[in-house]
Amino acid sequence: MQALVLDSDGKPRVDAHHADPVPHAGEVLIRPTRMGVCSTDLELCKGYMGFAGVLGHEFVGVVEEYGKGVDKAWLGKRVAGEINCVCGDCDMCKAGLKEHCRDRTVLGIAGRDGCFAERFVLPAANLHAVPDNVDDDRAVFVEPLAAALQVVRQLTIENRPYITVLGDGRLGLLCAQVLARLNATVRCVGKHETKLALCEKWGIKHRLLGDVGLRQDQDIVVDCTGSAGGLSVALQMLRPRGTLVLKTTIAPPEAQSAQGRSSTGLDLSPIVINEINVIGSRCGPFAEAIDVLSREEVDVVSLISRRMKLSDGPAVLEQAGKPGVLKVLFEP
Amino acid sequence: MQALVLDSDGKPRVDAHHADPVPHAGEVLIRPTRMGVCSTDLELCKGYMGFAGVLGHEFVGVVEEYGKGVDKAWLGKRVAGEINCVCGDCDMCKAGLKEHCRDRTVLGIAGRDGCFAERFVLPAANLHAVPDNVDDDRAVFVEPLAAALQVVRQLTIENRPYITVLGDGRLGLLCAQVLARLNATVRCVGKHETKLALCEKWGIKHRLLGDVGLRQDQDIVVDCTGSAGGLSVALQMLRPRGTLVLKTTIAPPEAQSAQGRSSTGLDLSPIVINEINVIGSRCGPFAEAIDVLSREEVDVVSLISRRMKLSDGPAVLEQAGKPGVLKVLFEP
Repeated sequence: MQALVLDSDGKPRVDAHHADPVPHAGEVLIRPTRMGVCSTDLELCKGYMGFAGVLGHEFVGVVEEYGKGVDKAWLGKRVAGEINCVCGDCDMCKAGLKEHCRDRTVLGIAGRDGCFAERFVLPAANLHAVPDNVDDDRAVFVEPLAAALQVVRQLTIENRPYITVLGDGRLGLLCAQVLARLNATVRCVGKHETKLALCEKWGIKHRLLGDVGLRQDQDIVVDCTGSAGGLSVALQMLRPRGTLVLKTTIAPPEAQSAQGRSSTGLDLSPIVINEINVIGSRCGPFAEAIDVLSREEVDVVSLISRRMKLSDGPAVLEQAGKPGVLKVLFEP
Repeated sequence: MQALVLDSDGKPRVDAHHADPVPHAGEVLIRPTRMGVCSTDLELCKGYMGFAGVLGHEFVGVVEEYGKGVDKAWLGKRVAGEINCVCGDCDMCKAGLKEHCRDRTVLGIAGRDGCFAERFVLPAANLHAVPDNVDDDRAVFVEPLAAALQVVRQLTIENRPYITVLGDGRLGLLCAQVLARLNATVRCVGKHETKLALCEKWGIKHRLLGDVGLRQDQDIVVDCTGSAGGLSVALQMLRPRGTLVLKTTIAPPEAQSAQGRSSTGLDLSPIVINEINVIGSRCGPFAEAIDVLSREEVDVVSLISRRMKLSDGPAVLEQAGKPGVLKVLFEP
């Protein structure tokens, strides 16, 4: 089968004859019908997580086979799937923090081939059935929307705090929509007029970064920049004792400098001086994301910039990395 | 008068003929009887805060003069003093966060001459009378002890969490003592056997950093390393969803590289991946620190490594920066 593979030398390529995966006990084989490119995929290509294998973790697809012990009712079902594949036995799993399983593999990110292929496997325990009224173009956003909803789970939002979502990319625009549903004063700050135009359409306040005063007056800043410089800007926006939600994961400085990119030293003193609360935020609740999509409470379709084919290979990743481009979807 | 001055070129020197300060309205003139050297003083010499002027912010002293509007009852009183000099009018002051005053000056750190001098001035509003049973050797620790107590204020400690105080320096040993008073499992991890021997004396668990497995199993880590590398070690010690209290303020990478020191890029991805909660922590409650000293609940006298004279000048700072040295005190 065809698959988009990241080689151990950091180069993505199409493998036209990738071995067909086989579902082991507890796993299902999924034929993805839509996949989404995420900034994490681009960072993986820059050395993040030291991953090698089939890329991809955002998908909607159909269950085609199942391994031992799996309920056969999954067969033929249209599903979204959580990306952390967990042991169920470690202290984190037992504490109800399965996303933090000590022995996890992560679809297309750590120790497990991803979904940018004609077929891939995932534990049946990770599956969520997608209701009929959520079509594929929407369902493929379940994973990133869940990540946006995680921000809300980790915050206590009261008294209309001033919230800035920093970054007008894929995740930023999802976070802005999710936060604007609450009783909060939300603005999205970014660098791209075309992307911020979506906020205008949604009735969400928005500003170009260059037009915003860095006045340490925001109660909450959500860093969705996906760049090392986002933290420094966020710290200049936050009031003392404010809260910074960190969503940005990027390749570490060593990996970047190994690839010839310059690494800038970060000044964390403002966190101490202004007694900032920084909250790291990663994966979120799939069931809630599906529910939000089902109720049409957020607009994800407007985020789709391009549709490509698996055979387009690395060009798909290049597209997703271009300024002004939001979600690139592709099909096997 | 004599004063230890940091020149704008980053060099500390004794100024034997420094102009005598005059207390303005609301201020008092203080003759310090003991002063303490803090890591912040050493960082200021490396470019932190871009400060120039008289160094020093840890002291106990006697009020010798007072400006307009000050209650004359302060005259002759032995005092400790808060270091943030605030406006009382800005949004932070009005919100009860005066340590975060927008227009503050900070004794010997920002916009205001410090206490490493024969005399210095401070607003009377910053003063705390020192009770007779707290002698000068103890009272000079009010400021750093308050900073340690601030950690406790910012945490909710329940169910005997595993707490590591990372760093066996001046602040680390104060934090370890303060946290060990609570119902918590506290260990101090450092690099110096002689410093950790104090923990042995106090009945506090302690380990050499090289002997500790970095197993992501701590619930709370307090970074008191005072070095850029502390954060990375702390993140390897913390369990997912753990809490990191950040006490380290160091000169920013630009200032360090301007002085020819290498700056290492920080990898903040573990904060996001493990959904760590980072809490910046700075100045703390003076009244509580005085109370703790008065009740002899912490041992500060054992932290005194050396006593020097103001006339010893930069050599005092050099001493304080040496491995194995804890608190260096001096007198005018």
